[in-house]
Amino acid sequence: MDETHQWNELAAQLGVDSIRCSTAAGSGHPTSSLSAAHLVAVLFSDHLRFDVDDPKDLGNDRFVLSKGHASPLLYSVLKAIGALSDEELMSFRRFGSPVQGHPAPVPDMPWVDVATGSLGQGLPIGLGMALAMRLDGLPGRAWVLMGDSEVIEGSVWETMANASYHQVRNLVAILDMNRLGQRGPTMLEWDGDRYAARAEAFGWRAIQIDGHDVDAIDRAYTEASDGNGPTFIVARTEKGHGVSFLANAEGWHGKSLDEEQAKQAIEELGGERSITITPPKPEHAGLPVEAATASVTLPIYEGDIATRKAFGETLAALAARPDVVVLDGEVANSTHTEDFQKAAPDRFFEMFIGEQGMLGATVGLQALGRAAFAATFGAFVTRAYDFIRMAAISRANLRLCGSHAGVSIGEDGPSQMALEDLAMMRAVHGSTVLYPADGNATAALVGQMADLGGISYLRTTREKTPKLYAADERFPIGGSKVVRTSDQDRATIVGAGVTLFEGLKAADQLAGEGVNVRVIDAYSVKPLDAATLRQALEDTGLLIVVEDHWIEGGLGDAVLEAVAARGAELSGRVIKLAVTEMPGSGKAEELRDWAGISAQKIARAVRSALAR
Amino acid sequence: MDETHQWNELAAQLGVDSIRCSTAAGSGHPTSSLSAAHLVAVLFSDHLRFDVDDPKDLGNDRFVLSKGHASPLLYSVLKAIGALSDEELMSFRRFGSPVQGHPAPVPDMPWVDVATGSLGQGLPIGLGMALAMRLDGLPGRAWVLMGDSEVIEGSVWETMANASYHQVRNLVAILDMNRLGQRGPTMLEWDGDRYAARAEAFGWRAIQIDGHDVDAIDRAYTEASDGNGPTFIVARTEKGHGVSFLANAEGWHGKSLDEEQAKQAIEELGGERSITITPPKPEHAGLPVEAATASVTLPIYEGDIATRKAFGETLAALAARPDVVVLDGEVANSTHTEDFQKAAPDRFFEMFIGEQGMLGATVGLQALGRAAFAATFGAFVTRAYDFIRMAAISRANLRLCGSHAGVSIGEDGPSQMALEDLAMMRAVHGSTVLYPADGNATAALVGQMADLGGISYLRTTREKTPKLYAADERFPIGGSKVVRTSDQDRATIVGAGVTLFEGLKAADQLAGEGVNVRVIDAYSVKPLDAATLRQALEDTGLLIVVEDHWIEGGLGDAVLEAVAARGAELSGRVIKLAVTEMPGSGKAEELRDWAGISAQKIARAVRSALAR
Repeated sequence: MDETHQWNELAAQLGVDSIRCSTAAGSGHPTSSLSAAHLVAVLFSDHLRFDVDDPKDLGNDRFVLSKGHASPLLYSVLKAIGALSDEELMSFRRFGSPVQGHPAPVPDMPWVDVATGSLGQGLPIGLGMALAMRLDGLPGRAWVLMGDSEVIEGSVWETMANASYHQVRNLVAILDMNRLGQRGPTMLEWDGDRYAARAEAFGWRAIQIDGHDVDAIDRAYTEASDGNGPTFIVARTEKGHGVSFLANAEGWHGKSLDEEQAKQAIEELGGERSITITPPKPEHAGLPVEAATASVTLPIYEGDIATRKAFGETLAALAARPDVVVLDGEVANSTHTEDFQKAAPDRFFEMFIGEQGMLGATVGLQALGRAAFAATFGAFVTRAYDFIRMAAISRANLRLCGSHAGVSIGEDGPSQMALEDLAMMRAVHGSTVLYPADGNATAALVGQMADLGGISYLRTTREKTPKLYAADERFPIGGSKVVRTSDQDRATIVGAGVTLFEGLKAADQLAGEGVNVRVIDAYSVKPLDAATLRQALEDTGLLIVVEDHWIEGGLGDAVLEAVAARGAELSGRVIKLAVTEMPGSGKAEELRDWAGISAQKIARAVRSALAR
Repeated sequence: MDETHQWNELAAQLGVDSIRCSTAAGSGHPTSSLSAAHLVAVLFSDHLRFDVDDPKDLGNDRFVLSKGHASPLLYSVLKAIGALSDEELMSFRRFGSPVQGHPAPVPDMPWVDVATGSLGQGLPIGLGMALAMRLDGLPGRAWVLMGDSEVIEGSVWETMANASYHQVRNLVAILDMNRLGQRGPTMLEWDGDRYAARAEAFGWRAIQIDGHDVDAIDRAYTEASDGNGPTFIVARTEKGHGVSFLANAEGWHGKSLDEEQAKQAIEELGGERSITITPPKPEHAGLPVEAATASVTLPIYEGDIATRKAFGETLAALAARPDVVVLDGEVANSTHTEDFQKAAPDRFFEMFIGEQGMLGATVGLQALGRAAFAATFGAFVTRAYDFIRMAAISRANLRLCGSHAGVSIGEDGPSQMALEDLAMMRAVHGSTVLYPADGNATAALVGQMADLGGISYLRTTREKTPKLYAADERFPIGGSKVVRTSDQDRATIVGAGVTLFEGLKAADQLAGEGVNVRVIDAYSVKPLDAATLRQALEDTGLLIVVEDHWIEGGLGDAVLEAVAARGAELSGRVIKLAVTEMPGSGKAEELRDWAGISAQKIARAVRSALAR
């Protein structure tokens, strides 16, 4: 059959090019590319509806190479569809080249939507893409090529469960079951029945094929496109297929061939070719449209409210923007994303208690132009840290919220207390970390998050806090508020969220003793308002930074960084008050006092410092 | 049947006591306790082999309340077996009480082995316990009570896969399928067939029962104890069972009853009782024995070696200690734990690519006295951050290793680069963070980790580094090494790992220009040698801290913290050189130079700072 021959020829070319570019680089994963060459050849030739000249058009299908180490294969097919020149392909893994070791959506790589390379993330992302397509009423499909080692990752199974629950028909997982992982056989080797049984138990349709039989692949893809998915294609393959000394051989993971080996392998594969293909054209649907924030009326607070509740209500206001979507990890009545759900149920996604899957889906939704928020307890955001790290490499715009910050949650105890979230989120490239104290600050910051690039994180508080700011107060990202000051400030208390109120109470106490103290609300933990903090240190000689967080990596360290920034000559004193011992249960006030971050303890620290 | 009656009576008592203590506390999860009261009553009466007076004896079965929010039930049964008095029970959730909101192994709570409260962690921990029992040749079982919402968590499925792969016969999961999660119906509600199918597809035996039928429960436990596990018991239950206004009712999650409601509920349950039971006695096996480090001969390095390789070889040396076990996430040929595997194959556990499951199993192994190490790429340690956070609450002794630190891994690109691991691990309570530069430092530090309490983390480097230290050099935790100094040091370069060598090269360059620079190896990032760093700042007036890590939260912030500690008067300058832009692929040297952490860039920074 002619088509069969063409597919096989293309697959051979992809294999050859994978070897060529990795040999030129001196590293890479040619054998992991060879196993999936037929799968990719048939997909890009006849099933993936994709316009190489308009890769961001929403009408395209999406392809996610979850086994990102098989990047030579991806770049080789991008060459075959005319996206990359051979010269660009051969720049694989070179410094400055967009043809990176693992795929990443860098500026000159518009055909890649998300970064991969941390396994088990492609399928969660694919689910988000499939959900976005459904929301847009578009006929696209999300195709995810997975390796077999990564199927152990729990994030895969969170997504398997959620995809069938959400009845996502346009998601196709293609499992490149090549039997060999990095260091030897995978857990299930070639037990396709077992993979299929697992997929079926999770509510997916499973199709088992020989992953080197292009006609079988074509039939499987056709079936997977019939709208009865989600579909899990188990493709039995050989790692290093088509090359005598590589096929199904151990010890070849992540190794490029030397020149001599490459020459022989390319000869076995029939030599170099220069086939070009054009994937099926999608119906164009245009680029994602940014919705206008102007249409949103943010809530106004006159009394006490928990910032988590203000977050939910602001989300509900943002529901007026059709691009906003919200995901939650089965705690929407705690994070208060349920307010958004009520306002826009079709744009709310219950992802149940599987934070990694939730984050991956959020990345997929934003990749297709959605302004995506995701929320859970701040303590459980830790669970998705690898996804957040990878999202930064994906240049994703993510809006995250972690509720129930610090010991201030009280009786539930340390398992539910976010005490490392600021440290974790500060160490995300290009992140914005926000920690509002009252309802109006929360509304203003969440409103801005909707339009913010990069990864932003909002830390919210469980208990109600008093109104501090007028509704028209502005809260620029990177700003701060000097909420109390005088001509004779002898110290500065820096707080955020709950500790700001403790700081104010401490300032009251101290004022009663004749000690004037400046109080600063560092609601923007990153970027931090370094100028105001440096000025405060210069003016008062003493900063007391108070946070409901471990003493490492949070607001205190951020303030020290700001003070020392650009090699500034240091002077004055900076004292960090934060949680240093493992908390238990108790009332919020008891625990804050125990931790040394209550008004009493702050005042005592100021007194003690001034007495020295 | 008399037994039936006794079990039901005990279950009613556990329900009553769960209500009593949560009502007294004014918070807690009585309805989540009621659903599992029969399951727990039968388990503790007749199946859990457990000596209440000797809870740490290795002969005991282990019970893990994975649904930690049902803590009232746990404390109620601890009262029934005589571990807690009623007064202690009624101190539930009070400040200072060991009867915390979620179970934690605090000093006065020896019957709890691990902290729970972050869902999906109990089963991974149970697997580790089951593996420990098998290693010890003991007949114990690990019983894990799970909620149904937590079954979405991917960590559960990592463990489901691993438990059957490792043929663990003594692990029993009990699913309290009460249909209702925190905010409404769970994903699968009462679809027991679906749960059973999933468990069976993952290689477990599944048993479906009515979770309020004590005889059925008894039969299921008997079957689960026959040595043919792992066994997954799907128990259909009602949340709030036994109380008319709570049973299967929405809106009651995590809410305590008020006095009036409690009175009515207790009446419906037949009032208070004072039943005491004695669980079946185990054969005593003694306490875990700490092995002597003395018997270990650490490796000695005379030439270049990658610290990751030195880590593996030191682990292999530690294999002489029978208490040492090692787990890896299918990258043992990269982390080099394979060297340990060769030395002690029965004490090496391949956990495949599922980092959460790996960490959980590590926690379980250490809970039964094993000196447990776990390793993967530093980048992927992020995946298990929630488990590490919870392990700190568990007061676990964990030894973690993250390999492939920083941009220095080169061509693989940012997905494989650990750039936030120091920030993440510093913000773990009581953690120790180590980053050796050469082989002998690595051997010395890994040797100490085997005896170290708390959570320790070793950061290793992909590429080889030169020998810097003699084999008999000592590396105390919390220490540092001044590797170059003179009488006229005009600045101090602080490095660790790869950046130490860049710093030394920079010092060479500067010395050639007549500028003497001190160089400090901060191999102990936490605790940091604050005295030496403060002295260096005092002596030289300028610290240049260089790290292959994001600029937030790592060594630079640790140094600033040390400099500012205890409100010290600041003086001098601290300049942080670290990664501030998203890297791509390239050679290690290219990327270090691009990031501004190469010898050239360090020397330039010193020159520039001194010229100011």
